[in-house]
Amino acid sequence: MNVLIVYAHPEPKSFNAALRDLAKSTLEAKGHVVRISDLYAQDFEARVTRGAFRSAKDPDMLNIIGEQAHAWKTDGFAAEIKAEIDAIAWADFVIVQCPIWWFGPPAIVKGWMDRVFVPGFTYGRGKWFETGGLAGKRAMLSVTVDASLAAYSARGRYGDLDAMLWPANLSLRFVGFDVLKPFCAPKVSESPEIRRHSLEAYAARLAAIEGETPLFFHAASDYGDDDLLKPGLKPAASSPRDA
Amino acid sequence: MNVLIVYAHPEPKSFNAALRDLAKSTLEAKGHVVRISDLYAQDFEARVTRGAFRSAKDPDMLNIIGEQAHAWKTDGFAAEIKAEIDAIAWADFVIVQCPIWWFGPPAIVKGWMDRVFVPGFTYGRGKWFETGGLAGKRAMLSVTVDASLAAYSARGRYGDLDAMLWPANLSLRFVGFDVLKPFCAPKVSESPEIRRHSLEAYAARLAAIEGETPLFFHAASDYGDDDLLKPGLKPAASSPRDA
Repeated sequence: MNVLIVYAHPEPKSFNAALRDLAKSTLEAKGHVVRISDLYAQDFEARVTRGAFRSAKDPDMLNIIGEQAHAWKTDGFAAEIKAEIDAIAWADFVIVQCPIWWFGPPAIVKGWMDRVFVPGFTYGRGKWFETGGLAGKRAMLSVTVDASLAAYSARGRYGDLDAMLWPANLSLRFVGFDVLKPFCAPKVSESPEIRRHSLEAYAARLAAIEGETPLFFHAASDYGDDDLLKPGLKPAASSPRDA
Repeated sequence: MNVLIVYAHPEPKSFNAALRDLAKSTLEAKGHVVRISDLYAQDFEARVTRGAFRSAKDPDMLNIIGEQAHAWKTDGFAAEIKAEIDAIAWADFVIVQCPIWWFGPPAIVKGWMDRVFVPGFTYGRGKWFETGGLAGKRAMLSVTVDASLAAYSARGRYGDLDAMLWPANLSLRFVGFDVLKPFCAPKVSESPEIRRHSLEAYAARLAAIEGETPLFFHAASDYGDDDLLKPGLKPAASSPRDA
């Protein structure tokens, strides 16, 4: 399969870079083709501005969804956005490799979603969730934290990690991805032994990644016109509601 | 009191700007002093790079926390970061006014936290949560969404809004803020009537904001050395665990 690793760390010698390189070599050894979007090295802009678009549908009022839809129809995205769209279109599996800063992905990763998950390409005209534009592809967050896994558990200092990553995972599902459970490397500053253990755990997981069952999300049609889960249905365990 | 509104929308005619202006006039009418950080207008950088620092503690390896701590000690932050630090230091109450994009604040808001919530100023040397550097100040997220409030409820399409905003609220608490429940203006694209209703609700809330009880968060000392809530304590209702 074609694998895109979206990598976001400003330091080339970071442990995130080691995880990126391990994923690349492990997946290539299994015969997959791997490409990397190195957001910092590409100087990828995080903020949604007029710079995302080569022309303006409405120069007097920046309606972001409106300009994104217009740019999708007219091949009007800035080159760095078009390159990411093309990379996602090419990929069967997208890994987002980043540290957790302030209990979520860094701004540059949020900006990648804000600017690249555009209507037409990823959703719209009734296509979302299981019918989203990226349906049939898989995605996974691979993150690092500087605390224990216990700290990111339901009774931990910071709460359950999957609940914390719900916004990012829900975004991935909204556009159609089958979303795999996040991988998390804990205590990245503590010792080489812990880091080596994380590398081993990640390699083992990646070796069997094609057989993994994605997280459960409700189908869009499980919700009524009132935006509520239809009576009798239980909220998904992958949401923070049951965490 | 001194109120800082951190405002993040690229369109000056956006409804977020209307909410910002309403907060300013409402709070000023009550005798408060209001300043605004207009992140887009200030061209505030969202990404953590060497550009945040006027010198390098370690030019060979970018350890972000290490460089931030060094810059705090040496007055070594770039001007735009120092300005935000000074504004927060001045404020008794910080409102973050932004849209929800992809189920969270825009990248520019995440970048504001990534770059401005620095050790020394906001945490460190055993100071965090109730003893954090910003203890005694209050903060609140004020957000807009383009769906119904039902969609952002526990049984809604996107799940409970407070659970979704847990990462941002936990970040605000980590650095010491007393965190007020977020304000949310729904269906911002639907009709002038809905927007007017939101403005009225926001004005009413702000008029009584000084008397509000903050969200409950556990004290740092409620957790053991194992990073887990001590036996017998119940997870906070303001965390997604009970949402």
